[in-house]
Amino acid sequence: MKKAPYRLYLSEEEIPKKWYNLRADMKELPEPMINPATMKPALEEDLYPVFCKELAHQEMDDKTRYVDIPDEVREMYKIYRPSPLCRAYNLEKALGTPAKIYYKFEGNNTSGSHKLNSAIAQAYYAKKEGLKGVTTETGAGQWGTALSEACAYFGLPLNVYMVKVSYEQKPDRKNIMKVFGADVTPSPSNTTNAGRKILAQNPDDPGSLGTAISEAVEVAVGTEGYRYVLGSVLNQVLLHQSIIGLEAKAAMDKLEEYPDIVIGCAGGGSNLGGLIAPYMQDKLLGKENPRIVAVEPASCPSLTRGKYAYDFCDTGKITPMAKMYTLGCEFTPSKNHAGGLRYHGMSPILSKLYHDGYMEAVSVEQTKVFEAATLFAKVETILPAPESSHAIRVAIDEALKCKETGEEKTILFGLTGTGYFDMKGYNAYIEGTMTDYIPTDEDLQVGFDKLPIIPGIQDEIK
Amino acid sequence: MKKAPYRLYLSEEEIPKKWYNLRADMKELPEPMINPATMKPALEEDLYPVFCKELAHQEMDDKTRYVDIPDEVREMYKIYRPSPLCRAYNLEKALGTPAKIYYKFEGNNTSGSHKLNSAIAQAYYAKKEGLKGVTTETGAGQWGTALSEACAYFGLPLNVYMVKVSYEQKPDRKNIMKVFGADVTPSPSNTTNAGRKILAQNPDDPGSLGTAISEAVEVAVGTEGYRYVLGSVLNQVLLHQSIIGLEAKAAMDKLEEYPDIVIGCAGGGSNLGGLIAPYMQDKLLGKENPRIVAVEPASCPSLTRGKYAYDFCDTGKITPMAKMYTLGCEFTPSKNHAGGLRYHGMSPILSKLYHDGYMEAVSVEQTKVFEAATLFAKVETILPAPESSHAIRVAIDEALKCKETGEEKTILFGLTGTGYFDMKGYNAYIEGTMTDYIPTDEDLQVGFDKLPIIPGIQDEIK
Repeated sequence: MKKAPYRLYLSEEEIPKKWYNLRADMKELPEPMINPATMKPALEEDLYPVFCKELAHQEMDDKTRYVDIPDEVREMYKIYRPSPLCRAYNLEKALGTPAKIYYKFEGNNTSGSHKLNSAIAQAYYAKKEGLKGVTTETGAGQWGTALSEACAYFGLPLNVYMVKVSYEQKPDRKNIMKVFGADVTPSPSNTTNAGRKILAQNPDDPGSLGTAISEAVEVAVGTEGYRYVLGSVLNQVLLHQSIIGLEAKAAMDKLEEYPDIVIGCAGGGSNLGGLIAPYMQDKLLGKENPRIVAVEPASCPSLTRGKYAYDFCDTGKITPMAKMYTLGCEFTPSKNHAGGLRYHGMSPILSKLYHDGYMEAVSVEQTKVFEAATLFAKVETILPAPESSHAIRVAIDEALKCKETGEEKTILFGLTGTGYFDMKGYNAYIEGTMTDYIPTDEDLQVGFDKLPIIPGIQDEIK
Repeated sequence: MKKAPYRLYLSEEEIPKKWYNLRADMKELPEPMINPATMKPALEEDLYPVFCKELAHQEMDDKTRYVDIPDEVREMYKIYRPSPLCRAYNLEKALGTPAKIYYKFEGNNTSGSHKLNSAIAQAYYAKKEGLKGVTTETGAGQWGTALSEACAYFGLPLNVYMVKVSYEQKPDRKNIMKVFGADVTPSPSNTTNAGRKILAQNPDDPGSLGTAISEAVEVAVGTEGYRYVLGSVLNQVLLHQSIIGLEAKAAMDKLEEYPDIVIGCAGGGSNLGGLIAPYMQDKLLGKENPRIVAVEPASCPSLTRGKYAYDFCDTGKITPMAKMYTLGCEFTPSKNHAGGLRYHGMSPILSKLYHDGYMEAVSVEQTKVFEAATLFAKVETILPAPESSHAIRVAIDEALKCKETGEEKTILFGLTGTGYFDMKGYNAYIEGTMTDYIPTDEDLQVGFDKLPIIPGIQDEIK
């Protein structure tokens, strides 16, 4: 083992040249998507009206193990990658643990998170295919910011539908997207049928992610030369995000270190799937056996309390159905301060791996999360995003277990981003006004009751 | 010349072990400070009630060329340093210039700016001397955030007096400081005589940096075991910030590059003085002759239109007087979106170097600054702070001159920080509501008329 620096940066040449496609090594593949129009497994062509062709191909391709990262994408990666692998010496000291804690920090770019890794790839393929523009939705604004940066770089017009209440409450997020040249529309809007319908019912509707997706997809499908892009859940997104894990592993290899535990926060799964990719490969191939832990909010516990069932990926029920751990696309999680972890489902790839016993999952309450975040900020001097802080919480808990047992475990977690636009949550924590929420079984049943029935495929919900 | 990567990170071992004290190589030293109580040159001991001893010593020491960076300070530097030396390939391409543009990026830390470099040193010495706490003031909040981080790390209590209007308009900045455990008081407050006096006149007084300094100094001087700390202007701050330039030079040396032009924004001078330190040394020693350019806002033009005269460092006139380029401590610059560049004076060291012809200075208007900032963000994908964007503006202008002449000049500028908390300015620019302001000679005369008369030393203002 070599003495790790606080921050280990690989060189520019060491940025991976290929993404890794976890599906190519899975013993059993995730169940196929179902096209709601035909109620049959979706084909690659079924995705063409929504996604550009190369991305539709990546979405369906479960055989190609390594996918070349285009030079143009790697060129933009070089502006902010490799991201550092950090040794949390100060956190270890503060905890008095014999454990070694590492984190892969993805927040050192203006989007403030790992989302940029996939945004660049998606914008590149769209531009290469000659598209005139893309649409997307954003809630808290991280994905929208990342995509705005990528589209500005490649000169691709972008329409972002931003949940109206966020648009109004987070003007800074909206303005950053505008600096990067994106067109940001508060949703519901008068620009789509979906939006007009909702406004007709209630002109003051605050909007929802479901409505914003519906608007973005409607515009993409209905405008010549436009397609829709999405920042999480999808197989293509996990493929692009594998760069996180590949870099982390390359850096740890240099230190002659191998993690006993790999921890990531999980909303739709984009960060977790990327971070764990090469470690899961080792596990699938029987080379190594690290523990892999997904951390989700107790208020939105898709892995720990959801059903493994076919469900729509969006609240509007216009996307293909995927088999995944889900709380039901009509489940509305209580408001909490980790907007990026409020998704009803989980990446089908991660869902399958969890179902087959390759991963653990744990849920944590937000006051405990912010307690961890605040300690982390003070000793590591990075203000973490609330989402990332879920992983910090469990990394701390595991390190404290090591303190009890005296084990010198090596812990690796994903620090997905920074929390500069999440001060409302921090303030609530400091002021002591933060509350926790755990849905009852009855609360969850409401979502489960509305899961789709697919004749011959999903006749009942177990 | 070697092919530069987009981002060049030195290794942890390459973080400088000594700060460089520019005064040791100056042909003529800055004029001594004057103690307003005695109207005579201030002694080191005169500073003890305000600054801790080691910092008072650094403030007065114009002989020691290299000052050891304490191990504890270097240890904290390792969490976010070395900062990257970046090659702006994309900006060069967007401009179509043959010039090579480099920037030293100091924004990759939670304080979002270079201020942390001196905050760590000041907090360390205060803690080492056994102080019970320190006080400071903050306007826009960058310095307060940096100091909060440093004090949290060393376990030193901190009272920040924050200009009330900023406290109310920038709650996020205040909350970040609180996350790091700082005690933040809106100024004017009821906690000091200075504050009570102002509140008695006007309970709704919005506060000013001058009042906040007066409150912070009053508390520091009046509380046993407390001292006051300041983030710019001072000689000690330039000493600590020399780490920026030392790292930049070490990185450029690796690339076998030497800048023809070094450009930095200048408010109180902390960043500029740090960035240029080793290059100015080359110039003072006759080894090299790079152009060194200070950039200031047209609305607060201390170098380009100020007087080189003795003045107070604070609006409250309680600090020692220093000879510097100044607009007069009673000059109130118009509001603009670069809060860090609204100081009436300029570092005495930089003022002397400018006076003696070692530096150039240029002033720019804020719409042109935000135009540069927006272009930079789009191609380099870092949202720059408005302050830093003054340097970007002039770097672009110099690169465009090279485009005309065909010269392949090497340009280095300081990117001091990120603009995540400055979206109001960006929004005004995007919306087209941003205005410029250039004070008239009459406006400036008001400030000059109130410069202090010091018998035998400054009998009149020239």
